[in-house]
Amino acid sequence: MRLFHRVPEFELPSYKGETVRLRDYLGQYVVLYFYPKANTPGCTREAQDFTAKLEEFAGLEAAVLGVSPDKPEAQAKFVEAQELRIEMLSDPELQMAREFGAVKEGGGALRSTFLIDRAGVLRWRWKDVEVEGHAEEVLQVLKDLYEADRAINPLIQIRRAWRALSPDPLLKEEITKLIEAAHLAPSCFNNQPWRFVVATGEKLEAVKEALPGGNYWAKPAPAIIAVASQRDLDCKLSDNRDYFLFGCGLGVENLVLQATQMGLIAHPIAGYNPPKVKEALGIPEDYTLITLVVIGRHGDLSGLNEKHREIELGPRARRPLEEILGWGQFAFKEER
Amino acid sequence: MRLFHRVPEFELPSYKGETVRLRDYLGQYVVLYFYPKANTPGCTREAQDFTAKLEEFAGLEAAVLGVSPDKPEAQAKFVEAQELRIEMLSDPELQMAREFGAVKEGGGALRSTFLIDRAGVLRWRWKDVEVEGHAEEVLQVLKDLYEADRAINPLIQIRRAWRALSPDPLLKEEITKLIEAAHLAPSCFNNQPWRFVVATGEKLEAVKEALPGGNYWAKPAPAIIAVASQRDLDCKLSDNRDYFLFGCGLGVENLVLQATQMGLIAHPIAGYNPPKVKEALGIPEDYTLITLVVIGRHGDLSGLNEKHREIELGPRARRPLEEILGWGQFAFKEER
Repeated sequence: MRLFHRVPEFELPSYKGETVRLRDYLGQYVVLYFYPKANTPGCTREAQDFTAKLEEFAGLEAAVLGVSPDKPEAQAKFVEAQELRIEMLSDPELQMAREFGAVKEGGGALRSTFLIDRAGVLRWRWKDVEVEGHAEEVLQVLKDLYEADRAINPLIQIRRAWRALSPDPLLKEEITKLIEAAHLAPSCFNNQPWRFVVATGEKLEAVKEALPGGNYWAKPAPAIIAVASQRDLDCKLSDNRDYFLFGCGLGVENLVLQATQMGLIAHPIAGYNPPKVKEALGIPEDYTLITLVVIGRHGDLSGLNEKHREIELGPRARRPLEEILGWGQFAFKEER
Repeated sequence: MRLFHRVPEFELPSYKGETVRLRDYLGQYVVLYFYPKANTPGCTREAQDFTAKLEEFAGLEAAVLGVSPDKPEAQAKFVEAQELRIEMLSDPELQMAREFGAVKEGGGALRSTFLIDRAGVLRWRWKDVEVEGHAEEVLQVLKDLYEADRAINPLIQIRRAWRALSPDPLLKEEITKLIEAAHLAPSCFNNQPWRFVVATGEKLEAVKEALPGGNYWAKPAPAIIAVASQRDLDCKLSDNRDYFLFGCGLGVENLVLQATQMGLIAHPIAGYNPPKVKEALGIPEDYTLITLVVIGRHGDLSGLNEKHREIELGPRARRPLEEILGWGQFAFKEER
């Protein structure tokens, strides 16, 4: 199982004769530990240690699952004899153990533990575990993860409207991945109102000609993504609720965060000449070209003017929270 | 330094006499390794091993930084004598080493390595390192991380419009964190057009009365966030570009992804009676109430009707990519 990747769905019989799936723990952390054999000294101690700390794991919204090659009946006896309170799963052919690389060279399960996060990602692993102190160590790592996940997402935190672009090219598969991320956003009745046209090469030059002087910094960009939609492509409801622009916003934010994860800049702009860009890219007149997303790799600051250099290195500016967040009541004084 | 948390900005003198900051590596991975003393056998071997693999690290967009208590001059001699090609940083008072917990009990730097991701998050650590095979092991872990980061973000991937809500309450700080995440989204000229009103308690009951039968599943929700804006709060540009709804979309996607990271459901809906909700929450008539975001913890499927139960467990439906992504040219056949 590769670190940092999502763990594929699994399904194993439990000691109670039920079927347990990863999906059953949606929104929770999962501590998955492989042990060689029920009712042997090391395995008993390990299961007891996890049982003793079960409330602490539960307090961090984590389930603890023990996996061994024992049959469910043997695990049931183990649970009863040792008064264990953790879920035990049976993997008699070591199929799952093999997928996790938790198999000894001579055969048999290798004592190993895997920490899976709320999104199903393998975040930490311990191989060839020493039982002494292990449950406590897992708990400490989980605690760090739990608290990190309750802070602002790091991609949301670090994202900025960066301007210091490198002219280095992007791969087609990199750009495609950004659009795939956008396409996974929610939308009204799943209408998916977003349309993306990627400009590179000659088309890119034509798009760049439609940028005003203030967007000079976008000139080195190896690609620009035009985002267009039309009100008939999405719900039109009472209270002036045309959902197409809202939907595009949901999609574009996914795009921007995916770019951040991939080490790229993705900077949506509103400063451009829409008819010119539409003509260059064949976007119909009755579509709204809501944004151009300027994308590329990080470059140095040498191409920026003094004002933009300051913004690039300066702090992030946001209104105080009380100007946008009300509890139970809209009570904002708006300057318009 | 806590695992999974963002590493605070640092600043150290390099062996070349320059100042090196974490910020200099924006968009890259950083391998930060602490070693006890320049020009001693283990430290030489480790630095040589990292140097030998430098192209492989660079290919994975990672910088390798060695940190020791040596003065920059001693490091410079070390670099020259051993023909090293890695950046060396001087931490004579072990201040940074202490922050990373890379100090021996008796004093001195503890040989330790830290892998920092593109968002500045500490993703892996090796303490009390054995030099033999270490650079290769770091490279393998980095490779897994690099490739994971080039796949779709796991929160974007796992997010769904979940309906199986638990009635368990949410903490005020949890809800606040969601809004803080939304508030970090980009917006046209940084206008921050989003306004959030959180309904709990009696206000929540009034909001729930404004939901049609089809949104019965939202009834257990411990809170609902109303998202309102007004076109004068944001840019109004040619080509019917009213940015307020687009901006709210950017913000709400942050909110939804932050909720996913925290193990919560956040499901934006369009099915409600806007005048009733506005009245309950005091939202002015001339604001558009663009969505209600139903939030809560994951619950079981028992409260859902058969159709919704199927959707909850079923696959995700998206149009083929070619219906929303064009290369250089808008060429979509739209059914309207």
